[in-house]
Amino acid sequence: MPVIQVSLIRGYSSKVKQRLCRRLTDTTRGVLGAVPEAITVFLHEVETDGYARGGHTRAPAAASEEAPEDRVRAYLAAMEARDLEAAEHHLSDGFVMAFPGSPEMTSLSDLIAWSSERYRFVRKTFQAFETCDKEDHSVVICHGHLSGAWPDGTTFDSIRFIDRFEIRNNRLTRQDVWNDLALTRP
Amino acid sequence: MPVIQVSLIRGYSSKVKQRLCRRLTDTTRGVLGAVPEAITVFLHEVETDGYARGGHTRAPAAASEEAPEDRVRAYLAAMEARDLEAAEHHLSDGFVMAFPGSPEMTSLSDLIAWSSERYRFVRKTFQAFETCDKEDHSVVICHGHLSGAWPDGTTFDSIRFIDRFEIRNNRLTRQDVWNDLALTRP
Amino acid sequence: MPVIQVSLIRGYSSKVKQRLCRRLTDTTRGVLGAVPEAITVFLHEVETDGYARGGHTRAPAAASEEAPEDRVRAYLAAMEARDLEAAEHHLSDGFVMAFPGSPEMTSLSDLIAWSSERYRFVRKTFQAFETCDKEDHSVVICHGHLSGAWPDGTTFDSIRFIDRFEIRNNRLTRQDVWNDLALTRP
Amino acid sequence: MPVIQVSLIRGYSSKVKQRLCRRLTDTTRGVLGAVPEAITVFLHEVETDGYARGGHTRAPAAASEEAPEDRVRAYLAAMEARDLEAAEHHLSDGFVMAFPGSPEMTSLSDLIAWSSERYRFVRKTFQAFETCDKEDHSVVICHGHLSGAWPDGTTFDSIRFIDRFEIRNNRLTRQDVWNDLALTRP
Amino acid sequence: MPVIQVSLIRGYSSKVKQRLCRRLTDTTRGVLGAVPEAITVFLHEVETDGYARGGHTRAPAAASEEAPEDRVRAYLAAMEARDLEAAEHHLSDGFVMAFPGSPEMTSLSDLIAWSSERYRFVRKTFQAFETCDKEDHSVVICHGHLSGAWPDGTTFDSIRFIDRFEIRNNRLTRQDVWNDLALTRP
Amino acid sequence: MPVIQVSLIRGYSSKVKQRLCRRLTDTTRGVLGAVPEAITVFLHEVETDGYARGGHTRAPAAASEEAPEDRVRAYLAAMEARDLEAAEHHLSDGFVMAFPGSPEMTSLSDLIAWSSERYRFVRKTFQAFETCDKEDHSVVICHGHLSGAWPDGTTFDSIRFIDRFEIRNNRLTRQDVWNDLALTRP
Repeated sequence: MPVIQVSLIRGYSSKVKQRLCRRLTDTTRGVLGAVPEAITVFLHEVETDGYARGGHTRAPAAASEEAPEDRVRAYLAAMEARDLEAAEHHLSDGFVMAFPGSPEMTSLSDLIAWSSERYRFVRKTFQAFETCDKEDHSVVICHGHLSGAWPDGTTFDSIRFIDRFEIRNNRLTRQDVWNDLALTRP
Repeated sequence: MPVIQVSLIRGYSSKVKQRLCRRLTDTTRGVLGAVPEAITVFLHEVETDGYARGGHTRAPAAASEEAPEDRVRAYLAAMEARDLEAAEHHLSDGFVMAFPGSPEMTSLSDLIAWSSERYRFVRKTFQAFETCDKEDHSVVICHGHLSGAWPDGTTFDSIRFIDRFEIRNNRLTRQDVWNDLALTRP
Repeated sequence: MPVIQVSLIRGYSSKVKQRLCRRLTDTTRGVLGAVPEAITVFLHEVETDGYARGGHTRAPAAASEEAPEDRVRAYLAAMEARDLEAAEHHLSDGFVMAFPGSPEMTSLSDLIAWSSERYRFVRKTFQAFETCDKEDHSVVICHGHLSGAWPDGTTFDSIRFIDRFEIRNNRLTRQDVWNDLALTRP
Repeated sequence: MPVIQVSLIRGYSSKVKQRLCRRLTDTTRGVLGAVPEAITVFLHEVETDGYARGGHTRAPAAASEEAPEDRVRAYLAAMEARDLEAAEHHLSDGFVMAFPGSPEMTSLSDLIAWSSERYRFVRKTFQAFETCDKEDHSVVICHGHLSGAWPDGTTFDSIRFIDRFEIRNNRLTRQDVWNDLALTRP
Repeated sequence: MPVIQVSLIRGYSSKVKQRLCRRLTDTTRGVLGAVPEAITVFLHEVETDGYARGGHTRAPAAASEEAPEDRVRAYLAAMEARDLEAAEHHLSDGFVMAFPGSPEMTSLSDLIAWSSERYRFVRKTFQAFETCDKEDHSVVICHGHLSGAWPDGTTFDSIRFIDRFEIRNNRLTRQDVWNDLALTRP
Repeated sequence: MPVIQVSLIRGYSSKVKQRLCRRLTDTTRGVLGAVPEAITVFLHEVETDGYARGGHTRAPAAASEEAPEDRVRAYLAAMEARDLEAAEHHLSDGFVMAFPGSPEMTSLSDLIAWSSERYRFVRKTFQAFETCDKEDHSVVICHGHLSGAWPDGTTFDSIRFIDRFEIRNNRLTRQDVWNDLALTRP
C-alpha cells in the first residue's frame, strides 16, 4: 500500500538509483509488514538549480557505486587470492580484525602470519550477505562454509563461518570473524 | 539533501511511524552517502477512504509493534531465564537452530539437552544488534560476549559470540550461532 | 505503475472520496493501459486554512452525494412508478426529452400523454450504466431491455432500449431514448 | 481547487499525456463539482531506473496512441467505405454486433448481407461521442443521424441513431446499434 | 500555473498558516510573474511522529502569531501614546534608532528627550507597509504622512515620512526614520 | 523543518529558479521562524504536455530575468550617469516620482531640472536593498548615504537617504525619495 517518493538531485547512476529503490522497498516491508508488490518507489529528480537547503544550492554527497556488500566481496576475494595490495584498497586507516583466538590485528600481513599457523589456505562458500544501514555507518554480515587445508596438508570443508564488517565512508573499518575451526582442528 | 515522502493509510502507531522514519533515513544514508542531517522524512497519512489500489479500498497489513530486534531480545531473555513457554511465543512452526558442533535442532527442549552437556549456564552481553530487511524476510544479527559456567562448575567469560536470526511474519524462523567456546573448553 | 495523488480540502464524504478514487483509477487505466492493480490513488486532505489559490482561502464546490448514475436510476424509478413529483426533483428547468418518433418534449405530463398512446406501461431491465465526464457536464447512458403491455393489453418483452442523459449541476438536462418498439408494435 | 499529481515513468507520447490531463480533469470535475479552471494536473515523469514496485523496475504497459473514440471513428469510416479489411484491423476476435431486429452477428460480411436487405447505403452524421472508462474495459457511445437510401432507391435522412461499443486491449469487442429506421421504412 | 506544496508538522495556528499561504503566493508571483489566480498553495500537515530529520523527531520552531508588520504597528502605537513600557515589550536588547539629524539612540527615553526639542507631538497616517524576509531577519518598511505640533504649538500635517525596521527573533532590533520635517520646521 | 515542493513547467532559467528557491526559503523562515538550514526547496519541473489547468495546456507567464532589485539598480545607475535614454527603458508609462519638497513629477527631464537647483550632482552608496512581493506588484526599498556637491560647488557626504520603488509587470511605476539634504543644505 505505501508509496515512497524521494526528491533528490539528478546525477546518481542507474545502479545507485535502483539500489535505493530496492532497499527502501525492503525497509518499508520490514517495518510496516506490507507485501512488496504493494510498495511503490518513485525517485523524482530535480536539476541542481532546482534544489536549495537554507536557500543555497548544494552539491550532493557522492554515492558509492559499489554497494557495501560488493566492497566486502571484493576484499574477501583479494584476501583469498593473497593480493594484499588490492585488499588494502578497500580498507580505511585503522582497520581492525578479530579472529577466533586472535588478538586484535591491524595489518593484513599480521593476519597472514597469524592464520598461516592455523591453516595452509581457506576458501569461503557464501550462503547469504546482509547489509544493515545504521545512523553513521553500515554493517555487512556474510556467512557460509569454509574449506581448505590444515598446516599438515589434510583438508577440511563444510566448516561454518560468519564475518561481520563495519563500513564508514565506503571503506572497511572493522572485521570480526567467527568459525567452527576449533571444533575440527587436528 | 534527499527528502523522502511516504504516503500511507493512517493507523500505524507512533512507535512504528518513528521506526519507519529512522530506518528510511539510515537506508538512504547507506545508499546515497548523504549526511543524516540532510535527510528528511515525512509520513503523509490519508484516511482509509482516501486510498485505493486497483480502484478499491484496501486494509493495510498490520505492522508489528515490536521491531525484529525487540523480538530477538525477548526470545534470548526468555531462553536465558529458561522460560521455554515464553520463548516459544516468538517462534514460528518449523523454527530451526544450529549451534557450533550441533545438529540442526527444531525443539527448544532438544537445545536445552544439547547445551546442558556443554555448559551449566551462559549469559550474553550484547555489543550491537543489526537488522537487515530483505525482500520477504528480515535478518537480525547480535554479537557480544558470553559468560557462564562449565559443567564442572568452573566459570568462563569474555567468550566472543554472534547469533544470526531470520524473521518472517513477525516470528523467528531460524537461529544460527557461532562462538569461541571450543577454544576455551576445559 | 502510476500513482495519482490528489491534494484537496478536507470535507468530502466517504462516498464521494471513494468514487473519486474509483473513477480516477478507471480513467488512468483507460488512457495509459495500466492494469488496475498497478494504479494507486491517494487523497491528501488539507485543512481549509492550509489551502489558497491566488493567496486566498477558497471554499470548495459542494460535491453531489449521488453519482450521476444514481440520479438517473432514481429518475427512471420515479417515472416507472408514475411519481411525477419525485421525478421532477431530478430535473433542471429546460429538461428536454426525445423518444423514437416523438417531438422534443419538455414536460413530463406531455411524455405521459405521448407514451400512453404507444403502450400501456413499460418496465426497464438494465444491462449496464456508463457515466462519461466531459468538460462541463456529464453523460449517463444505460441500456437493457423493455417489457410491458401494448394499449390493447398484449404484452411484450426483451425489447432492446438505450437511454442517454445529460447532467449539469447535478440535474438532468436532456434525455434521448432509442428502442426497438417500432419493430414489434402490433 | 484540487491538484492532481501523477507520478509515472517517462516515455508516453505527448498525445497520450495531454489526453490523460484532459480526462483526469473531467473526471475530477464530474465527481467533485469543481470548476475546470480550479483543477490542475501535473504529470511528474521519472526515469525507468527511478521507479520500482516490489523493489523491481517495471516496464509500463504500452498506451494506445489512439483514444478509444478514434478507433471507433476509424472503424465506422472503414465500414461506411465498405473497406472490410481496414475495418477488421480494429476488431478483436469474437467481435459481436447487434442491430435492431438482427441476430447477434460475428462477421462483417454477415453484417453487410443483413443490412443490404434493409438499406442500399447509410451515412452517419455524429452529434457527440462519449468515452467511459470502466474497471477493465472502456465503452464508447456515439449518436447522431443517419441518411441513406432504401433498397428501392428512395432516400432518407435525419434518422436518429446511437451506437455503443465495448473496447478491450485497444480492440473493439462489441457493437450494439439502435436507430429509428423501423419507424420510417417504406 | 505553479503549485506549491509545503510539508510541515501540524500545530501552527490558522493565522500563521494563512499568512504562509499568502506570502508564498506573493513571492512566487514576484519571481515567476504568474498571475495570482494561477498560483495554488497546499499545506500538507503531518503529525510530530510522522516527521524526522537525521532520523530524529524534531520539535518545530515556534512561529510568531504576530506578523512582523503587526509588531511594528503595535510598537508605533505604543510610542504615539507615549506608553514606553508597552513599547519596550517589542524591542530586543540593543535596539538602535536613527532619526534625521539624531545620533544613534538606544533608549526610548533618549528618543523622547531628543524629539521633544523638535516637536510637541506627532501622529502617523500610514499609506503602506512592506515586509521583506531576508536570510536571517525581516525588514518592515512603512510610509505615509505626519501631522502634529511644533514646540511653539503651531501645527503641521502632510509631512512625508518613512520608517525602516529590522526584526530578528520576533523583536525589533533597529529603526531608521526619514521625514521632511526639516523642510517645514519653523 | 518544512519542505517546499514547487511543481512548475520546465523552461525557467537557472537564475530565476535559484531566485525562487532563495526567496521561498526566506519567506518560509519569516513566517514560521524555522532556521534556514531546516528549510528545503525542490522545484519539480514537468514538460509542457505534462501540465493542464482546466484540462488545457497553458503557456506559463514569462519570468523576468532581472530581479526587481536589479532593475532598480540599473535605473539608478543610469540616472547617476545622466543617461536618460537608458533610464527610460526601465520605466512604465505613468511613472511618478516624489522627492523631498518636490511636486509629483512624471518626466525624467523635469527631475533633472528640479534637482539641478538643489545640487550639482549626487552619488549613492547603498547599505541594503529589500524586495517585498505584494499581491499584484513588488516594492523595492534601498537606503544608504549620499555624497555630492551643492550648486555652489561645496561638497557633502554621509547624507542619509532611502528610496522606495513600485514595480509592476517588470517596469518601475513609482519612486518616492526621502533624505536628510534639507538638514545640511547651505
